[in-house]
Amino acid sequence: MRSHYCGELDSSLIDQEVRLCGWVHRRRDHGGVIFVDLRDRGGLVQVVFDPDDAAMFASAEQVRNEFVLAVQGRVRRRPEGTENPSMATGEVEVLATRLTVLNSADTPPFQLDDYHADVSEEIRLRYRYVDLRRPEMQERLRTRSRITQSLRNFLDEHGFLDIETPILTKSTPEGARDYLVPSRVHPGEFYALPQSPQLFKQLLMMSGMDRYYQVARCFRDEDLRADRQPEFTQLDIETSFLDEDALTGMMEEMIRRLFKQVLDVDLPQPFPRMSYAEAMRRFGSDRPDLRVPLELVDVADLMGEVEFKVFAGPAQDPAGRVVALRLPGGGELTRKEIDEYTQFVGIYGAKGLAYIKVNAWSEKGREGLQSPILKFLPDSAVDGIMQRTGAEDGDLIFFGADTATVVNESIGALRVRLGRDRGLMQEGWQPLWVVDFPMFERDSHTGRWVALHHPFTAPKEDQLAQLEADPGRVESRAYDLVLNGTEVGGGSIRIHREDVQRRIFRLLQITDEQANDRFGFLLDALKYGCPPHGGIAFGLDRLVMLMTGSGSIRDVMAFPKTQTASCLLTDAPSAVDEIQLKELALRIRLRA
Amino acid sequence: MRSHYCGELDSSLIDQEVRLCGWVHRRRDHGGVIFVDLRDRGGLVQVVFDPDDAAMFASAEQVRNEFVLAVQGRVRRRPEGTENPSMATGEVEVLATRLTVLNSADTPPFQLDDYHADVSEEIRLRYRYVDLRRPEMQERLRTRSRITQSLRNFLDEHGFLDIETPILTKSTPEGARDYLVPSRVHPGEFYALPQSPQLFKQLLMMSGMDRYYQVARCFRDEDLRADRQPEFTQLDIETSFLDEDALTGMMEEMIRRLFKQVLDVDLPQPFPRMSYAEAMRRFGSDRPDLRVPLELVDVADLMGEVEFKVFAGPAQDPAGRVVALRLPGGGELTRKEIDEYTQFVGIYGAKGLAYIKVNAWSEKGREGLQSPILKFLPDSAVDGIMQRTGAEDGDLIFFGADTATVVNESIGALRVRLGRDRGLMQEGWQPLWVVDFPMFERDSHTGRWVALHHPFTAPKEDQLAQLEADPGRVESRAYDLVLNGTEVGGGSIRIHREDVQRRIFRLLQITDEQANDRFGFLLDALKYGCPPHGGIAFGLDRLVMLMTGSGSIRDVMAFPKTQTASCLLTDAPSAVDEIQLKELALRIRLRA
Repeated sequence: MRSHYCGELDSSLIDQEVRLCGWVHRRRDHGGVIFVDLRDRGGLVQVVFDPDDAAMFASAEQVRNEFVLAVQGRVRRRPEGTENPSMATGEVEVLATRLTVLNSADTPPFQLDDYHADVSEEIRLRYRYVDLRRPEMQERLRTRSRITQSLRNFLDEHGFLDIETPILTKSTPEGARDYLVPSRVHPGEFYALPQSPQLFKQLLMMSGMDRYYQVARCFRDEDLRADRQPEFTQLDIETSFLDEDALTGMMEEMIRRLFKQVLDVDLPQPFPRMSYAEAMRRFGSDRPDLRVPLELVDVADLMGEVEFKVFAGPAQDPAGRVVALRLPGGGELTRKEIDEYTQFVGIYGAKGLAYIKVNAWSEKGREGLQSPILKFLPDSAVDGIMQRTGAEDGDLIFFGADTATVVNESIGALRVRLGRDRGLMQEGWQPLWVVDFPMFERDSHTGRWVALHHPFTAPKEDQLAQLEADPGRVESRAYDLVLNGTEVGGGSIRIHREDVQRRIFRLLQITDEQANDRFGFLLDALKYGCPPHGGIAFGLDRLVMLMTGSGSIRDVMAFPKTQTASCLLTDAPSAVDEIQLKELALRIRLRA
Repeated sequence: MRSHYCGELDSSLIDQEVRLCGWVHRRRDHGGVIFVDLRDRGGLVQVVFDPDDAAMFASAEQVRNEFVLAVQGRVRRRPEGTENPSMATGEVEVLATRLTVLNSADTPPFQLDDYHADVSEEIRLRYRYVDLRRPEMQERLRTRSRITQSLRNFLDEHGFLDIETPILTKSTPEGARDYLVPSRVHPGEFYALPQSPQLFKQLLMMSGMDRYYQVARCFRDEDLRADRQPEFTQLDIETSFLDEDALTGMMEEMIRRLFKQVLDVDLPQPFPRMSYAEAMRRFGSDRPDLRVPLELVDVADLMGEVEFKVFAGPAQDPAGRVVALRLPGGGELTRKEIDEYTQFVGIYGAKGLAYIKVNAWSEKGREGLQSPILKFLPDSAVDGIMQRTGAEDGDLIFFGADTATVVNESIGALRVRLGRDRGLMQEGWQPLWVVDFPMFERDSHTGRWVALHHPFTAPKEDQLAQLEADPGRVESRAYDLVLNGTEVGGGSIRIHREDVQRRIFRLLQITDEQANDRFGFLLDALKYGCPPHGGIAFGLDRLVMLMTGSGSIRDVMAFPKTQTASCLLTDAPSAVDEIQLKELALRIRLRA
């Protein structure tokens, strides 16, 4: 039915007969002639209907936006002066010789030929099949497909086997809420949808598969934030007999090739590496955006003795932190802007945002500074701050002083926000491996140790002896891949010895009985010849968002759900028959 | 850690240092030397531990089956007379210079070095990670991965976009029971897991995606037969602006390339095509196994007047059928064998199995035949049977006479069974497109019309006018791909006009209200510019089974479920907390 995609036509095809299929993007009548911009996956081309052929012209007069047409015609150069340089096919047009209206269309709920970004997302999701016709959405899904293809090809070439793991499975231990599926054959029992294939991929290594991958659907029944979906996709990978350097090296190569193939971008080789401790110290985050040239500078040692409690308290507290963040040229910030930033850090729990404006330090010294807190700071502290931050005239220095967690989160976020607001963000792509993570952190509510990654992550071999004595100091063999401040992948070398796995469970206050009940099959499997193994998972949706410059995960999925986990197109979830409930041995619990 | 896979070593590597990682498949002590067959994904190789290095030798003495080792050593030719031609690496061995025991192993639940097929499937599934180490299972999953890869590459090259559709969705109309997922955010409401992405892929065509594919997980809560699983995988495909010839032609090319790449087999070009009517007439089945050179021959017209009611009744009934099936050389069947076949057709509802043995027709004519029913048949009928079947001395002719359904199912199945039992099955691969299906068949219980494929399948354009007047005669634009008697794929050109879709729903006694409720979004979408489109889905598990010669779907999945839909490895499904039920607004219904 078709010889070319619309967007493929150019002057090399002049005088050729072509057959096109597509949608009416726009129709104009001009000087007794009808012009139709015909649209398909490949783009747009102008088709001209001449009144010479009366029947065809009459038919062309009937078509409206979004009608589906098959057109036959001859490619010709557009008359001088009517070329459209903003269209890829703008040098040519097709003089129609035959028109078949394949389908008509009601007036669409929003116009595609003159799309305004203010069409509500609700309408876009309800009429997703119209929204997805927009060139922008087409391009996103096409890029997504190319990304998956590039990743799969790399893994196929490197001996990875694509193996499917179950969707109907047992509750997995990622810690979020599971989606459950009632069993009809086993009344009162439930499957869980996997939060990740973690245990299955480890079992595949114990099965001798050596190298595994899967583009895996994962599920979390969480209260949805802007960038979350009930189901999401990860590129899931596991290998045997590779250490962290070999594995991360191979993954780097894969990501470098991906960026080259899809975006024609050269990422650095190798990717830089940074310890968790350094990332937290310099950027207040374990996924620092290295495009922002601002850093946190510790000044607690300068503040221990100052009269200003807000600084002195955290400075003296082992769990506290006091930092300075120099903003070059920040002296021009208005009072209003500073107030906004103060509100912004409040979101992260900061109780205020102290600052010093450096008006004329070079000439006037202390007199050249301007700050409500200056009066609390002795010369030694001021000198120290100025020296460490390297502040110059015209700069502004922000301060964070609170628990380390609050300081890291608030000043870390402020750092990125300032980078964006102040045009300091560097162009391009900044990948980073973050390594040397702690194994555990204390839950702030219960005081218990919890795994920073997951309980199957191996501790560093040489620290194994200190596991019980000083859990807070033991580092894991985990690694995260961060790209422009977004975590796009994370993984670890796993525990391959049963005794170590049991020690970790005990440290996490999982009793032997609980461990046997939930993870008995894993503990069993570890006893029957488990190879050293490790892997990684990449958040595919996240990666596609970054690579397509999309603002929302919903823009890189064909049929996403809303923030209340509804599908506006199909109206899922929905009520079911009483008969179905009975078969599943379930009753709806009426709420008060 | 590794320079080669074990199975890669051969005489080209003699005198080279290698590093291997793998499992102890077998250990033998012989003449003061320890021999270990080391196994990994690539195969087996013999490693020799010499007593010269006392520490290493002591270590090697500790290893048992399924221990995980890293071995360094030098490849050497095996001593004359000790080569093992049954091993791919049997010309060489590795003289170990370094041994690291990476992990120990308890005695496995069954032995891999001397595997007996009588290990129960329950044990195999419970210890799946041991079972999957068997070279046979490794090969199946590796082939599965290569099959998927070949199919994907073809589709990528042909401009298909890999697009993911939701798993948490609305009940789909395939007719089997859905798995349901309770919603926590919308109490009392449920998602359904998709039985196929049918409606989503059609919506993607309405979205202008033009060519879509997905390796899609599908779910059916059915009572499981031997070859079914609660979740299975299909290669799901949809295209716009292609007719059935263009689409099936492209799919054929894909399957031909698959067989060439994975099995080095040349499938015919083009695949033969056969109408549904012809397939039913000649083979009693819409998925005939063309490897069996036996055919059903209609003889109702010869039997209308015979005194034998068993034949005359169905012969006179428009819904009946009377056929003969000639088995060359079948004269040698014993009474006991014939009794067994009589029992066999009984499974399909046949009330008996009449036959004629052709002992000496050429010499003696009617006297040379032997049969309990001969006395009921006039000469004209006998002559007709002999002529039409082409029976010769030494043959046997079976008969089926009942409703057409019973005859087709029973004699169709007998045909294949005889082919197998009597060694008549031809070697090789016999693909076949079955086309020209009826749109509808009558449900034998309710008398209602039901869709033979699904209600979105388009009727043939030129028969559209007869749709309501004579639904039983209208043919669809569906096509099934049959391979060696197994349906491996099926699809159709879909309805792309709202009015036609509504007419089909009405014919199926789906009221407008029901249609709007269940498929309103589809009917809406058909109004906003739906292109002509069609597609196909291949049962990936089925295809892998065929291509690997596996007897069960469970043998081509990494972690299958039992016939009661349980996972013996992880113990899913299982009970959940009362708290979780409460969150989902559910209560377990106690059974009487």
